[in-house]
This record gives sequence, C-alpha cells and structure tokens, in this order.
Amino acid sequence: MSKVLNPTIEAECTFAHKTPFQLASGEHLQPVTLRYALYGRLNERRDNAILACHALSGSALVAEWWPEMFGRLFDPERDCVIGINILGSCYGSSGPASLNRRTGKRYGADFPLITIQDIVRAQARLLDALGVARLKAVIGGSIGGMQALQWAVDFPERVEHCIAVGAAPLSSLGLALNHLQRDAIRNDSAWCDGAYDPEQPPAAGLALARSIAICSYKSPELFAERFARRPDRSGEDPHASMSGRYDVAGYLDYQGQGFVRRFDANSYLTISKAMDTFDLARGYNSEDEALRRIQCDVLLVGISSDWLFPAQDIVALTQRMKAAAVRVQYLELSSAHGHDGFLADADALAELLSSHFSNSEGNDRASLVAVA
Amino acid sequence: MSKVLNPTIEAECTFAHKTPFQLASGEHLQPVTLRYALYGRLNERRDNAILACHALSGSALVAEWWPEMFGRLFDPERDCVIGINILGSCYGSSGPASLNRRTGKRYGADFPLITIQDIVRAQARLLDALGVARLKAVIGGSIGGMQALQWAVDFPERVEHCIAVGAAPLSSLGLALNHLQRDAIRNDSAWCDGAYDPEQPPAAGLALARSIAICSYKSPELFAERFARRPDRSGEDPHASMSGRYDVAGYLDYQGQGFVRRFDANSYLTISKAMDTFDLARGYNSEDEALRRIQCDVLLVGISSDWLFPAQDIVALTQRMKAAAVRVQYLELSSAHGHDGFLADADALAELLSSHFSNSEGNDRASLVAVA
Repeated sequence: MSKVLNPTIEAECTFAHKTPFQLASGEHLQPVTLRYALYGRLNERRDNAILACHALSGSALVAEWWPEMFGRLFDPERDCVIGINILGSCYGSSGPASLNRRTGKRYGADFPLITIQDIVRAQARLLDALGVARLKAVIGGSIGGMQALQWAVDFPERVEHCIAVGAAPLSSLGLALNHLQRDAIRNDSAWCDGAYDPEQPPAAGLALARSIAICSYKSPELFAERFARRPDRSGEDPHASMSGRYDVAGYLDYQGQGFVRRFDANSYLTISKAMDTFDLARGYNSEDEALRRIQCDVLLVGISSDWLFPAQDIVALTQRMKAAAVRVQYLELSSAHGHDGFLADADALAELLSSHFSNSEGNDRASLVAVA
Repeated sequence: MSKVLNPTIEAECTFAHKTPFQLASGEHLQPVTLRYALYGRLNERRDNAILACHALSGSALVAEWWPEMFGRLFDPERDCVIGINILGSCYGSSGPASLNRRTGKRYGADFPLITIQDIVRAQARLLDALGVARLKAVIGGSIGGMQALQWAVDFPERVEHCIAVGAAPLSSLGLALNHLQRDAIRNDSAWCDGAYDPEQPPAAGLALARSIAICSYKSPELFAERFARRPDRSGEDPHASMSGRYDVAGYLDYQGQGFVRRFDANSYLTISKAMDTFDLARGYNSEDEALRRIQCDVLLVGISSDWLFPAQDIVALTQRMKAAAVRVQYLELSSAHGHDGFLADADALAELLSSHFSNSEGNDRASLVAVA
C-alpha cells in the first residue's frame, strides 16, 4: 500500500464550556471536545467540505482507514475532507476515558448514553466553528453511514449529498449480537462496573466482544475460503487438546488481542449502544416524517455478502425513502467480505461510487462532487 | 402439548471396569457410565431398536425433547426407541462433573477430549449390553445427526437406516462461534480453570455462551418477526439507559439464565469441542474412504433457514455420499427456526420424515421402519 496521506490539519475543538451540550437521553456534557482532521483546505466560500464519518473503531484520520477513497472519490487538491472522531470514542474526543471535570476523574461507566443524533449534532457544532455552513457531501459506512443518514434528516439544509454504505436500523439479530458483545465486556471481572484502571482493562472481555463482532462483519463464505477447517497456522492441533485451535479461532484471538491494545472498553459499550438505538424516527413522529425532511441526494449502498446489515434491509430503506419523496438511489457493492466490505473492498467501493458520480453528473472526472 | 411419554425403562449401564475405554485422543476413561432410556420394548429378535441421538443439551429422555416424533415416526407399540445420554454430558453419563475414581474428585477440566467417534463407540458398548446387534435406525439432529452419520460409517453392519438432520462437518464460521462460546466460559473468573465448585459455576460465562449459540440456532427472520426492534417486554427502555434492553436481549438473557440452572459448563466445553472435531475422515484415509464403508440407507435433511449448518452444506455432503456410492436421499425441512428447526418445528419434521418413509416403503403407516 502507498504511504498514508497526512492530514493538512489535525486539531481539537472544544465547545459547550458555559452552556452544557444537551444529549438525547436528557443528560448533558460540559464541555465537549472533538478531535478532527482536515485533508486539503477549505476554500474561501467554504463549500468544498466533505465529511467522512468513521465506524465503530475508526478515528478522525480518514486516510488511515479509507486511503482508497483519496485520489478517487476524494480529491484533496479540490475537496476538503473532514474526519471527526465521534463523541464517545477514545481517539481524542470526549468519551468514557476522558476526565469528567465535575468529579476530576475519568467518566468510565458514568459517561452518559450517546445517540447517533448526539454524535451528529456535536459534529455540526464543530462545522459551525470551522465556518462550514453546508457540506458538499457526508459519507460513511456502518455507523459512519448512520451518521450520514442522520445528517440528511436532522440538518437537511446543510447537506448536498448523503452516501451511506451498509447502514440501516440494526436488525433484531444485530441488536442481539451487540448485546452479547456488551455482556462479554461486563462479564469480565476486570471491568469493575466501568471503573477499571486503564492499565488493567477488561482485556479478555473486550477481545471476546471484538471477536463476536468480527464474525458478524465477515461473511461465512470468506471464512470458509480463508480458514476452512484448517488447524491453526502456528501448528496447534485442535484434535489433540481442548486448547488446540482451528485457524479461524487463532485469527479471531489475534484480532481481539490487537484491538484491546488500541480501544477502550467503555467506548466500545457507548458506541455499540449508539449503534443499537439508531432509528431515524427518534425525535420525529415517524420514520416517514423524518425521511420527508431530507432535501439532498441520497445514495444507499448495500454489500452483497453483508449479514449484519443485509442488502435487503438497505433496499427496504431505499423504498421507504422513495415513498417519502427522497431523491434516493441504491447501488450494491459486490464483495465477499460481508459488512466489512466497505473497508476491506474499499478499492471496489471507490470505483463503484466514483463511476456512479461521473455518470450521473456527466463528468469524466471520477470524483464525488463536481465543482459548480 | 400432551403429556410427555414416560420411558419404559430408565437406567444406567457401566462398563470398562477392568479394561479402560480408549478414546480417540489417546487418553482413556475407566469406568464409563451411560444413562439410557427405552421407550417400548425390545422384541425377542432385538431387531426393533431405534437409536435417537440427542444434541448438545439433550438427554436420554427422548420424549422430553422430541415428543412430536412419537406416534408419528416412532411407534412405541412396535419400536423400541433408545435414548442415551452422550459421553461428556451431565445427565447421568460420564462427564466432567462425574467423579474421577483415580483422584476421588470431579474430573472438571481434566475430563479428556471426546469425539463423536468416542460417543458412538460408547453407545455401541451399551447396545452390546442390551443385546442389540443391529439398529433399525439411528436418527438425530445437529450433534445427534453427527452421531447418526458416525454410526453409519463406523458400524456399517449395525445400522439399517441413518437419518441426520442439520448435520455436516462444522463450517469455519461455526468453528469460530464455538470457539467464542468456549472463551465466554473460560473468561468467567468463576470457571477457575474448570475446577469450580458446582454450587458456584461460571454462570455469566455459560449464559453468554448459550446466548451466542442461540443466535446461531435461530434465523435472523425469526428474530425479526418475534422481536423486531421492540423494547424488552418487561418495560425497560433501551433509549433510557445502558442497561435498558431490547426484547431480543431480554429473551437471550432469559434463555441463558435458564440454561445455567440445567447444564454444566465443563460439559458444554467438552461437547462443543466434539462438535468442532466431527469429521468423518478421522480414523480413515479420507472422507471418501469413510463414506464408502456405509451400507445402510441414508437420509440427510437440511433446514431451509439454518445458517449454522446451511442446507447447501448438507446438499454438498449428499453429493459426496452419492459419489461414494452411498444410497442417500436429501430432504429439506422448510422452517423459519434456523438450525433449531429440528426441535422447534419437529411436528413438520415428523410429517416430512413419516411421509417420506411411507412413500418410499409403500406403507400407509406413516412410521419410520416397516416391520419385516
């Protein structure tokens, strides 16, 4: 892979010093810090901003998790791509690992419940501070796609294009799997009701949560192709002892252990819960009423092998949007990677999106947004 | 539901007092006890026995977990239906909760690795003791189906019909989910490396394991229909607090807690591992060589919504059997219940099977085995 692009600006923005930032739960945060990164520069009219929203474990550093989009969908010479670490995360924004100024201690499990609406409203405050009144586009996959959709509903006048990949309200099975992931963390005695020492995190519980999630992010076909029923590559024999693993188990353990080193367990709980409660109807009388607020062009992308957010659920959302008179189009990314396809097959996704936009806008430049 | 049939005989059989029972792992057990139940009576020629093999959490009491089969596929007036609690389980047969006579303590995690081959070989010893040289049929779903298949391969001369529902070698995703279930138990500090006091079991870990399993046993469609995104029926609001649950989460917790009261965590580990290592090729030069040993009629049943043992995997096994000159037929049970369909839709399964046998054997009696 080529060298990852450095952001033009990487900084923090803190607001709600004097007036608390109200949350959908009725609780509040005071103040709120968001870590953000800009790739490219805002033009004079500040109308070249693209907000790229990250998923559960991402950060403001868009070029680290979506490098394939740069030079294809994103043109840093022309666009200003903005990444914002979401509220509740652990990569520089206010989250459970942050100090609670009221108590002088980390929030831990006292960090309030966060919704996708809260995340997006905080992002809007940051864009206000940057002088960005309107986004050329908001784009994301998974929880990032939820944010993109929430932007289109909550701030219809501030968005020109909304692109959501593998995102819809979570299904019943998805709610179940998230619940079990949170249980895996809470079952870990090192979790200490959320008051763990960051040096003694609930590592086994968080690793298990991540491994359950990875099963839901990948397709059975990909696992079959990659791991089949082969013994662990390090040489363990699953037939010889209770601890002897198959290759797929070794892979999950490795992924889980790596995740523990880079993610906070309470942030995981917080964001997983925000994923659960994502529902565009919240705050409105119905989903239909919410969808009728949308003014921008919406592009929904389903992933062919996704079983966490099945393509049929994205198609159903497309249909509900059409019924609500939204200008919406649906594309399907053909990928064996399951839900994770928006990252693992980002090359193909970038091609799919850029060819869509060059066709639909009559450009030969394969990039997201035609300069006016 | 009508009153559950009582077994004609419920008893224990203990063998390998003097000579250890050798296991596929190279270890051994001495002695071995199997709890069994007979429904109906063995006839004089002892050729009316049907072995009904239970799945992970079942017992010898077939009429408790498969009542729908009686009066349809099983005729206790004519057949003698035999249920045997499998080696490694906790319902009366030798398992991790049994006393290890060598140490005078419970085996716990010292209970040796068990394979489906071991389970079946122990069952054969019990049938020897009962004087049953040949089974009219061996039938089971899930791990019970694995046993039925192993019987057909390992004891070709002792089986007339083999019926396996939702059973094939576990896929890579299935291996992954079993691994995570075992991790859920081992992560529980109450597990104590398997040496827990039965009064202080790793309840949270076992409940989590069971809940992960239930997700894989049921279909996404069934969850969507039953639970959708509704809040927990007890009145919790998932939007109001971190602990507020959706209905599907309340269901899983309830199932998990109930399971803890009736199942032993070390038995769960043991049987889950046996499920992993099921592979008809083991002990032979290839799967094809193993399949070519089969002499009986085989009926494989896939379940339409099963994603743990997808119907396509059962179809693929059918094809491999055909290539190995086995007299095999495939039927598909149409069920929304996923893998659990062999229990949850047992009425439909009993109809499917009994109509298959009445057609194929020219009987108007809708039962499994025509009297010679």
